[in-house]
Amino acid sequence: MPEAPRQDSSTQPTDEELRTLDAHWRAANYLAAGQIYLLANPLLTEPLRPEHIKPRLLGHWGTSPGLNLVHTHLNRVIRNRALDVLCIWGPGHGGPSVLANSWLEGSYTERYPDVTRDAQGMELLLRQFSFPGGVPSHVAPEVPGSIHEGGELGYSLAHAYGAALDHPGLLVACVIGDGEAETGPLAGSWHANKFLDPVHDGAVLPILHLNGYKIANPTVLSRLPESELDALLRGYGHEPIHVSGDDPAAVHRAMAQAMDTALDRIAEAQRAAREEGATERPHWPVIVLRTPKGWTGPAEVDGEPVEGTWRSHQVPLAGVRDNPEHLRQLEAWLRSYRPEELFDAEGRPVADVLACVPEGGRRLGATPYANGGLLVRDLPIPPLDDFAVPVDKPGTTLHEPTRVLGDLLAQVMRDTADRRDFRLVGPDETASNRLQAVYAASGKAWQAGTLDIDEDLDRHGRVMEVLSEHLCQGWLEGYLLTGRHGLFSCYEAFVHIVDSMVNQHIKWLRTSRRLPWRAPIASLNYLLTSHVWRQDHNGFSHQDPGFVDHVLNKSPEVVRVYLPPDANTLLSVADHALRSRDYVNVVVAGKQPCFDWLSMDEARVHCARGAGIWEWAGSEDGSREPDVVLACAGDVPTQETLAAAHLLRRHLPDLSVRLVNVVDLARLLPREEHPHGMNDFEYDGLFTADKPVIFAYHGYPWLIHRLAYRRAGHQHLHVRGYKEAGTTTTPFDMVVRNDLDRYRLVMDVIDRVPGLAVRATAVRQRMADARTRHHAWIREHGTDLPEVAEWNWNA
Amino acid sequence: MPEAPRQDSSTQPTDEELRTLDAHWRAANYLAAGQIYLLANPLLTEPLRPEHIKPRLLGHWGTSPGLNLVHTHLNRVIRNRALDVLCIWGPGHGGPSVLANSWLEGSYTERYPDVTRDAQGMELLLRQFSFPGGVPSHVAPEVPGSIHEGGELGYSLAHAYGAALDHPGLLVACVIGDGEAETGPLAGSWHANKFLDPVHDGAVLPILHLNGYKIANPTVLSRLPESELDALLRGYGHEPIHVSGDDPAAVHRAMAQAMDTALDRIAEAQRAAREEGATERPHWPVIVLRTPKGWTGPAEVDGEPVEGTWRSHQVPLAGVRDNPEHLRQLEAWLRSYRPEELFDAEGRPVADVLACVPEGGRRLGATPYANGGLLVRDLPIPPLDDFAVPVDKPGTTLHEPTRVLGDLLAQVMRDTADRRDFRLVGPDETASNRLQAVYAASGKAWQAGTLDIDEDLDRHGRVMEVLSEHLCQGWLEGYLLTGRHGLFSCYEAFVHIVDSMVNQHIKWLRTSRRLPWRAPIASLNYLLTSHVWRQDHNGFSHQDPGFVDHVLNKSPEVVRVYLPPDANTLLSVADHALRSRDYVNVVVAGKQPCFDWLSMDEARVHCARGAGIWEWAGSEDGSREPDVVLACAGDVPTQETLAAAHLLRRHLPDLSVRLVNVVDLARLLPREEHPHGMNDFEYDGLFTADKPVIFAYHGYPWLIHRLAYRRAGHQHLHVRGYKEAGTTTTPFDMVVRNDLDRYRLVMDVIDRVPGLAVRATAVRQRMADARTRHHAWIREHGTDLPEVAEWNWNA
Repeated sequence: MPEAPRQDSSTQPTDEELRTLDAHWRAANYLAAGQIYLLANPLLTEPLRPEHIKPRLLGHWGTSPGLNLVHTHLNRVIRNRALDVLCIWGPGHGGPSVLANSWLEGSYTERYPDVTRDAQGMELLLRQFSFPGGVPSHVAPEVPGSIHEGGELGYSLAHAYGAALDHPGLLVACVIGDGEAETGPLAGSWHANKFLDPVHDGAVLPILHLNGYKIANPTVLSRLPESELDALLRGYGHEPIHVSGDDPAAVHRAMAQAMDTALDRIAEAQRAAREEGATERPHWPVIVLRTPKGWTGPAEVDGEPVEGTWRSHQVPLAGVRDNPEHLRQLEAWLRSYRPEELFDAEGRPVADVLACVPEGGRRLGATPYANGGLLVRDLPIPPLDDFAVPVDKPGTTLHEPTRVLGDLLAQVMRDTADRRDFRLVGPDETASNRLQAVYAASGKAWQAGTLDIDEDLDRHGRVMEVLSEHLCQGWLEGYLLTGRHGLFSCYEAFVHIVDSMVNQHIKWLRTSRRLPWRAPIASLNYLLTSHVWRQDHNGFSHQDPGFVDHVLNKSPEVVRVYLPPDANTLLSVADHALRSRDYVNVVVAGKQPCFDWLSMDEARVHCARGAGIWEWAGSEDGSREPDVVLACAGDVPTQETLAAAHLLRRHLPDLSVRLVNVVDLARLLPREEHPHGMNDFEYDGLFTADKPVIFAYHGYPWLIHRLAYRRAGHQHLHVRGYKEAGTTTTPFDMVVRNDLDRYRLVMDVIDRVPGLAVRATAVRQRMADARTRHHAWIREHGTDLPEVAEWNWNA
Repeated sequence: MPEAPRQDSSTQPTDEELRTLDAHWRAANYLAAGQIYLLANPLLTEPLRPEHIKPRLLGHWGTSPGLNLVHTHLNRVIRNRALDVLCIWGPGHGGPSVLANSWLEGSYTERYPDVTRDAQGMELLLRQFSFPGGVPSHVAPEVPGSIHEGGELGYSLAHAYGAALDHPGLLVACVIGDGEAETGPLAGSWHANKFLDPVHDGAVLPILHLNGYKIANPTVLSRLPESELDALLRGYGHEPIHVSGDDPAAVHRAMAQAMDTALDRIAEAQRAAREEGATERPHWPVIVLRTPKGWTGPAEVDGEPVEGTWRSHQVPLAGVRDNPEHLRQLEAWLRSYRPEELFDAEGRPVADVLACVPEGGRRLGATPYANGGLLVRDLPIPPLDDFAVPVDKPGTTLHEPTRVLGDLLAQVMRDTADRRDFRLVGPDETASNRLQAVYAASGKAWQAGTLDIDEDLDRHGRVMEVLSEHLCQGWLEGYLLTGRHGLFSCYEAFVHIVDSMVNQHIKWLRTSRRLPWRAPIASLNYLLTSHVWRQDHNGFSHQDPGFVDHVLNKSPEVVRVYLPPDANTLLSVADHALRSRDYVNVVVAGKQPCFDWLSMDEARVHCARGAGIWEWAGSEDGSREPDVVLACAGDVPTQETLAAAHLLRRHLPDLSVRLVNVVDLARLLPREEHPHGMNDFEYDGLFTADKPVIFAYHGYPWLIHRLAYRRAGHQHLHVRGYKEAGTTTTPFDMVVRNDLDRYRLVMDVIDRVPGLAVRATAVRQRMADARTRHHAWIREHGTDLPEVAEWNWNA
């Protein structure tokens, strides 16, 4: 059991301490404002002139003083209590603040040695901000100490909880803006405290920063009566500590006390759970910090109030280069921080400014927890042969692929019982997705009330189930970014709920891969199951295979898409995904019984190639190119394609048919478009350059065209897939409705192989009759034709 | 000012009333269970045999008894108080319940006359449920009285508020499942009460149904201490009324009283606001209903507890056809409702069952509010010429297109001041998106606290701003589905936050268009601005043009995508979108100053065609096909393409260049794939069949290939667009980084027109030099080249 962190009895901050805290805060405010405005003259050693000002004024001032306050006070407690702290900056638009603090503490210069901690480096720090070729305006991967993109709002608290899981010695502070607090994902994240284990997990300290305004509007939470806000936070399971004011000295004192109170309570809750075995869910503290938006900035501009209003959201003084009065106001504003007291003649922060700053890896900009690749260890993945299903003859036996994978995941769960660096997340679907074997290795995390009839709930479990895709995604991102491993299993249609989150994660990875100091982290792995073809219970609303399309629009160095056609290929793909780094792997696989096509050895080879000819399934003689290529990707399309090949073999035995299965979808792209892309020689070798290709695809058919449009044989490529024809019905009826069924595929072959239409009229009619027979049968019986239900490859 | 609804003093329900309520509830429970199981023998007139049972048992029993309870008690108050009520069934998986109630009250038979309210119709009702070719298992468009797809969870409360806005006489009851309550969007929706005007809007009565379990897990809210849940709901601004139990008689009594109390409070709040001018935000009631999951179903199956547990989520008895004990249990379960007391010999519900059922359009399944097309009126759209910008010469003047649109929208807002059937929604971005002219016509809806410095807040405003794309989308869907009009303005990148919601809305429209009884509703209109090319402040995290790709995967009869290149074309597109019905219109337009290319008359013609040749911009002589086609879609690509045409005219005056602008993206699709698609004759007439086409596109370039891959000239099509190369930088640097700039386009022309590479070497080098000059200039100055910044078409 991890030790509880050292508990300091809280002491009143001394006046001397408050004075140095204020110095640090003023220095950070000065540098934050300076980044928005200054090209030169960083220390105001001369009067401010228009040529010192950036031609384009960009950035967000409004939130920065509040973030600076939090950073300053986190510094204090980290130092006083020797804490390991990671901070999630929800209002990450305030990039200037986090950059300023990192520069002050020296962690910025360690990552970017040319931005030295002196006047020259300060000039570069100010100039590069939001400057073309410089650094982004938000907290982004480039910012030391961050794991949280500040551009899109809503996910800070979910990231904070994800980071805290299985890091018992870590405190994750999380600043939540009152704008962000209005988003659904953030509102839903408050309940994450029902999943935080005070024994094995670290603590999360939410700091709700009410500065009152968003871009142009007041915020909802800032305009509630305090009693209502207090009830809300208690309802979320927290014990609120309120800090508010606009007098810096008073706020410093109150904030220092609030921090001490909060940390004492956290330490006590952890001690009780870890040393006394307390099992009551703690009512963790939350700090409610109410300070003016744009605090210490210009009070009024052009006769309008600015400080304390939405007008200070971005750039409070917009006309500085051309308007002498604005220039004068800017100079007065910047000098109000008294930079000459904060920096020495060489531009180095003075001792008072640095008094609160912690040492080494405890600095917020230097914590290894924000550079998870430094902490990540290879996952112990057991030999796949221990879990593989035996396949003597293809297409004879049936297995549920995700259930087979579940056994492997259970073993990984078992083998990480001590390390605790692997988690499974999912929106209440682990068992529905057939992965319930994992419960034998680790139960479901749960700290809320329990009843005797509950099953598999576990105060210390590492399976995370909550009915929120946002929370699942946010937890897993936070967990991976701080150096651990995981897998998100999700209904295929509803992973679209996190489209925008995955955009940001992919952008994060794309950028961090280009930063030499960011070490690679474990990939984000999706298992998309309960997929479009098998929504027998749920129908049309649950049918959407478009996440693959969404992901394939994004940076090719990051995204990978796999469609394993059976149990053993799923094992092989999962093995690869779990070992990989810095990718987003999307694996689409079924949970329903599915024919086993490949032995484990064959599966390994096939998945390594990503696409290949299944010789046993075709009828080529090898002496010439085939008459037609049947291609497939996805478990259901593979089954229909094999059945079509079976029909062709029986009814048109002279036809030379090649069967190609694609597991790794990016193989279809040109090599210059994706690292997995095939060159044309390989592509033509598989698909031919001029023979008809009938491609049965799992999702929207045009995706295959979008991937393959540059290929020589593209005009002969005919794709079948899902075309939004769905309802609550049987599996075979679904493929018939979307023209992806075996009979339709055979008809496609007959229609497209030159000369065959005439010669195979009778066969074509037979296929059309089978479809008609299906329609009549299902209307009558509500089930699939016996010949379909009982089909197997060896029949 | 609308009148407050009649307020009845609440009376204790009589024993007789409770007896008939229970009869109704039992009848609904009987029919709900029957739908999951029975093919025949609907009245159990003979002992149950395996052949009476469906071969595939599908559906969700767990939530159904609770929904039936709510329906029964809503019936009572509708009748007693003569209310107009719409109910949103959040746990819409419980389709059998809502179908059962609709059949009982007769509204089902009115929509589907073959499903008669007698034994024969009952057999059909039971059989068709989740049966291939029958009705879906969830509450779906096919279900009378619903505006809410029950398949995806999280949006019920947002829909409820959207429906209540500007319907002062309506009560919207909203059943929220405790599973759904865990989702982010639902958690964020509770604060919608800060936007509900008690004067002009109707009321929302949330009914939080705690049945304790999801698919396989307990729910968070059901496992909080009651005091914590109570604090949470008070924190959300509600006054909770708790009802709980598992004894039907006691629960009926408590529920009747709770309903009366809630409705009395609502009536009083509305009266105070409407008659006394009270401006305090009311603390609206919420009913917390705690009853067992699968209540009245089998208590135990195969030795495991089922009633009151997650095991009753779907089908409590799974083996009925093969397992005689299950069959026996099913029969006992069904007979426990005493169907012989509920239905007469002909299968008609008896008088006791129907005693609580309201009349006519007040029945929940017959309310016109759930069939908004019956209520919708054409929007008064003023003449566009009143708002058009004058264009004497193309490319001379600049306007911000969305600001021009803002003036039009303000007029629509003004002209609907009395009707109150038009709303603008957006995540705190109306002014940022330059639509602030609307505030002069209607302020921003706001019922929370205000300060003197606030601007444009309005207790009765119809501009809805909250920092939640989910809430914006949910409000607008609810508003449109109940017969009104609106527009959602959103940053382009962040509309992905609602990808999954728009999926469901498109599916809803696709299905409802095929139902003759569902009248067409106003389209859902997106204005996507602050788009990928103009994220000067925000950079990479704010760059994502992929929503268009997402939407174009969906049903073509519903989706429309427009990329107006300037102010007047935006007016024309908006006019069309606002007049249209049953579509999802995605309009992508800039908010930054943009050249005016077309006069209003030209814009009208161009937008009606959707794509056309801009003769004035090309250099064709009309006697032969051009040497090259420059095509463009989107405001920034259009500007770069015009600039490229300008350069070509100057440097290669002999080259015959055609310029094609595309406004309506679906025009590129084949006619058989989309109603707006061009036939090949039209396409080749615009783009030629064999000349190089350099296409500058707003978004991901491969989308154009996916749309046009079937065209004869596809192999000559070369597309430039966004390829995830972005950061915080200038507008021109963005296009250079993505190879979409004028110089690159000219180089593309030179590279692709046969023979030109040799002849135009010097011009090509000049273009390459200009790009090099750009890189040097921006590094130095942080701004764009003067020749770019100062360019116009007439220079």
